[in-house]
Amino acid sequence: MNALGTHILLELHDCDTGLLDDLDHLRSSLMQAAIDVGATIIDDVFHQFSPHGVTGVIAIAESHLCIHTWPEYGYAAVDVFTCGENFKPHKAVKQIVKSVRSNNYKVTEVERGILPALIQTSIR
Amino acid sequence: MNALGTHILLELHDCDTGLLDDLDHLRSSLMQAAIDVGATIIDDVFHQFSPHGVTGVIAIAESHLCIHTWPEYGYAAVDVFTCGENFKPHKAVKQIVKSVRSNNYKVTEVERGILPALIQTSIR
Repeated sequence: MNALGTHILLELHDCDTGLLDDLDHLRSSLMQAAIDVGATIIDDVFHQFSPHGVTGVIAIAESHLCIHTWPEYGYAAVDVFTCGENFKPHKAVKQIVKSVRSNNYKVTEVERGILPALIQTSIR
Repeated sequence: MNALGTHILLELHDCDTGLLDDLDHLRSSLMQAAIDVGATIIDDVFHQFSPHGVTGVIAIAESHLCIHTWPEYGYAAVDVFTCGENFKPHKAVKQIVKSVRSNNYKVTEVERGILPALIQTSIR
């Protein structure tokens, strides 16, 4: 690993629109996904918009998870940003995809914090 | 605009290491940047790590701002994710870069929520 963190940007299309507007469901799904991959939860903020849509952010010791939903489009944007080699963010991604029943999704992985010191360490 | 949101991933290198470990400074800088670009703040979570490092997330009605710092490397990862055409995230980015005195930074802009319905609207 030559980066401090792994940031997964998840585009969730064709989701269950009812689930995308259900704050309690989204909060428990993201919290469970974080717990299941061994994250240490610091705190979270979830908010229900009117007439629809939910925003949620979970601060974890290993960075953060976020979700923003647009039920009117069946779409949600999710971020899973983690640091540390023991954390496997793709497991959390799978759970989140399943939790909103997305039938069309895209996963983009971005390395964050690529530092010369880390590259040298991984070459040795 | 043919996407629901604009997500800026900011890699901040060669920062002032003292500022990267100063929770109050980071929180007020990010909150001010959000306010100055017209965001509606929902709530925030900031946490100081031991021996060093800060994590902060701000939920805004227009999505979120996040920061994770590694003072030992002079590095911070910042995200500014906004939706709506009236919001200009690049102004917030400039303020954040300045607030940690980064001498070497990279800005990556990612469109989130590219939907067929929005593309058709923008073509008309």
